Amino acid sequence: ALIALLAGDGIGPEVTAEARRVLEVLDLGLTFEEAPVGGAAYRAAGHPLPPETLDLARRADAILFGAVGDPAFDMLERAFRPEQAILGLRKELGLFANLRPARLFAGLEDASALKPEIARRIDLVIVRELTGDVYFGEKGRRTTTEGLREGNDLMRYDENEVARIARVGFETARTRRSILLSVDKANVLETSQLWRDVVVEVSAGYPDVTLSHMYVDNAAMQMVRDPGQFDVIVTGNLFGDILSDQASMCAGSIGMLPSAALDSAGKGLFEPIHGSAPDIAGQGKANPCAAILSAAMMLRHSLAMPERADRIEAAVAAAIAGGARTGDLGGTLSTTAMADAVLAGL
Amino acid sequence: ALIALLAGDGIGPEVTAEARRVLEVLDLGLTFEEAPVGGAAYRAAGHPLPPETLDLARRADAILFGAVGDPAFDMLERAFRPEQAILGLRKELGLFANLRPARLFAGLEDASALKPEIARRIDLVIVRELTGDVYFGEKGRRTTTEGLREGNDLMRYDENEVARIARVGFETARTRRSILLSVDKANVLETSQLWRDVVVEVSAGYPDVTLSHMYVDNAAMQMVRDPGQFDVIVTGNLFGDILSDQASMCAGSIGMLPSAALDSAGKGLFEPIHGSAPDIAGQGKANPCAAILSAAMMLRHSLAMPERADRIEAAVAAAIAGGARTGDLGGTLSTTAMADAVLAGL
Ligand SMILES: CC(C)[C@H](C(=O)O)[C@@H](O)C(=O)O
Ligand SMILES: CC(C)[C@H](C(=O)O)[C@@H](O)C(=O)O
Repeated sequence: ALIALLAGDGIGPEVTAEARRVLEVLDLGLTFEEAPVGGAAYRAAGHPLPPETLDLARRADAILFGAVGDPAFDMLERAFRPEQAILGLRKELGLFANLRPARLFAGLEDASALKPEIARRIDLVIVRELTGDVYFGEKGRRTTTEGLREGNDLMRYDENEVARIARVGFETARTRRSILLSVDKANVLETSQLWRDVVVEVSAGYPDVTLSHMYVDNAAMQMVRDPGQFDVIVTGNLFGDILSDQASMCAGSIGMLPSAALDSAGKGLFEPIHGSAPDIAGQGKANPCAAILSAAMMLRHSLAMPERADRIEAAVAAAIAGGARTGDLGGTLSTTAMADAVLAGL
Repeated sequence: ALIALLAGDGIGPEVTAEARRVLEVLDLGLTFEEAPVGGAAYRAAGHPLPPETLDLARRADAILFGAVGDPAFDMLERAFRPEQAILGLRKELGLFANLRPARLFAGLEDASALKPEIARRIDLVIVRELTGDVYFGEKGRRTTTEGLREGNDLMRYDENEVARIARVGFETARTRRSILLSVDKANVLETSQLWRDVVVEVSAGYPDVTLSHMYVDNAAMQMVRDPGQFDVIVTGNLFGDILSDQASMCAGSIGMLPSAALDSAGKGLFEPIHGSAPDIAGQGKANPCAAILSAAMMLRHSLAMPERADRIEAAVAAAIAGGARTGDLGGTLSTTAMADAVLAGL
């Protein structure tokens, strides 16, 4: 299988290099092809998502992604900012389903701001819609009749967009505890009312899954009060952005958590939830676990190798349980030494 | 001064009755006039915000509000749901500035899911815009050219709307540590880019206040990781809804936190941040502290009685420090007994 390796900015190259090393040790017959993305691509080619990179992403069977983001580009027009690369990839490849698991790795209780007995119960997956909502509706500036500057972003969903992510939610729930929570703001938003209607319609096909609904403000509260109450959450692009980052932090370890962005055929882009961390880039300090776990998700979701995925995940958990710690976890291991600790458990 | 007492649904009547009792004991020459709102008003008059209630709210010098919300009305059209009463009051009265302080009351460390040393540092105010954003832009359903149902909500802000809430943010920062954080999603939203531009423009008038910016997903993370880093946060209606509920829960005590919604002349609506809690309504179990502290905010912001406000707040803190606890705080006091404990400290 062909893997597009889009390492990107900051610590992206360091952590994806370790993920690649783990995959190569497993000897899975993968071919890696690299291409620039983000600020690195802007420097090299004048655009955060050059045509050659998009082309590689299309050709590949799966994409292993590092991180994009570079404060040096903050003054550029929005279309040219590093972050546009990830938005462009999601849209162009139809990667509509974002899976973001969050759990506390045993031994990392100290890393969470939550009380240990509360943090320990976190084991959830957020299924976030990724190619619609206010992210991709019409947007622009205009001048009002009173001569005022006005900014606009249209929040929108159609029934097909909601139905297909709802199905991913129900399917994911089936692989776990068969409960699905849909999060919206139906007391205010028309988009959310449609969302709720369609999720309820889709639920007819999943009589074995128990569906419930929660407003997003309450969900943000409950995520702090008792995150252990959640199992699978399905929600829109914007609410998913906020809630999934919050959930990761409740689990204490943004350096430990992977994500997948899947299309309807199971092809996907896999990336750590952490960003490019320019402050520690190039120092060999970054935690490679999120990238390694993203590679595991790639094996499970795009390459039909679930047992290998399980093995990698078990090796990461064992390394953590054995005391291996990078700086973000209060330890002193280098990026490479942390990956070595994972490899030792393979 | 004339106070409109809009008790509303669920525990609203119980908690506002205690707030009124505290105000009456202080003998401030206030006149109270009551009117139905929310589900109670729908039952009495067929609308959650009847014209007489709106008229009273307009005539009054300030509004003491309980809570609205009643699951019995969930099947009604959105325009007739209890929650529409609060949205209507905000819009009709131009209550654009929502102040939501969050702090951990000494002695309530157990109530927060955060580790005590982290929770103890929480002392922040969220300044949330309340009459714009995706809450009040055009919304509706339509059928796409492919015959699909589509939901729409327009997120919009004009420069005047942003500037006036930014000024409230800067003014609030001046009364505290002179640092202001503006939260947006400027890497994705045009509305947020305008928001950021205007906040920066307004900052020129406040050279003594240090302004910074953060994306909303990162803010939701940081609110869990280290909420003590925040002082005054200014943000839009939707992000403010989510972040303020999250912040209150970090502080551990949704039964303890008040809020103010102010117009440009300082007139305001004051309400607990908790909802109508139908499950415990009518049982005399609800914590009246949030309503009592909302009355204190009313004295400070709308009635120019800041010393009385301070006295009430000190009495609540003293009652808590002295061990007074309703059920939500792990105690057994009734609503009235909790208010008695506060009155004892006045
Ligand atoms: C970089 C940004 C555009 C992106 C998003 O908002 O989707 C990021 O926050 C994420 O969650 O992957
Ligand atoms: C009831 C609801 C419409 C309201 C809001 O979203 O503003 C509430 O959540 C709040 O924060 O006051």
